[in-house]
Amino acid sequence: MTNYKPGLHILSTFSCTTEKLMDHVFCKRVFDGIINELSLQKVGEVYHPFPEGGYTAVVCLTESHVSIHTWPEFQLATFDVFLSNFEKDNTDKVHEFFNKTIGSFNASAISQQEIYR
Amino acid sequence: MTNYKPGLHILSTFSCTTEKLMDHVFCKRVFDGIINELSLQKVGEVYHPFPEGGYTAVVCLTESHVSIHTWPEFQLATFDVFLSNFEKDNTDKVHEFFNKTIGSFNASAISQQEIYR
Repeated sequence: MTNYKPGLHILSTFSCTTEKLMDHVFCKRVFDGIINELSLQKVGEVYHPFPEGGYTAVVCLTESHVSIHTWPEFQLATFDVFLSNFEKDNTDKVHEFFNKTIGSFNASAISQQEIYR
Repeated sequence: MTNYKPGLHILSTFSCTTEKLMDHVFCKRVFDGIINELSLQKVGEVYHPFPEGGYTAVVCLTESHVSIHTWPEFQLATFDVFLSNFEKDNTDKVHEFFNKTIGSFNASAISQQEIYR
């Protein structure tokens, strides 16, 4: 590598049914499936369910990270995916990760900010 | 809680000496210290050192998350802190977390984006 290669970070708030925002096992299955499909490398993760029913999770990748924090009482989640371009350009994979997540949650994106960093 | 209360997310790239960007134990000590000082609640974490010397880390908080991905070869790191306002307004704590991190790393912020979400 000869250059610093920032990557794309998508920050989103999406809306979906309460059920999926209370089921961290479902979320882990979705994220693990996408990580596998996109040949990303997971190096650790935390899925923390709250007593009230929501959950908060971060997944650490060699390529950077994914996070989700759910608000089932409002049918909302804040969701991030950030992949660096260290070894190759992962910009398309950030979009794919985002779209596959929205699809799997059968969600509507309320906001989607794209930041190159 | 009666309202959805988005929180502040700071996304930064900072510059500092190579040594601190290769020492994930130092980073964990810094983050744990700040989490303690600010009375935040950690529910899990991943610190992953790379063979090349950098590291990538995510810390999961009940209030949301912190992440860092280091590029020691460029004396750079991408750093995020995001705290929701679920039970109280944590906006000041996001700024404090950011400033204490920059101070502890003896770093210069190259970029600092503030997003309310």
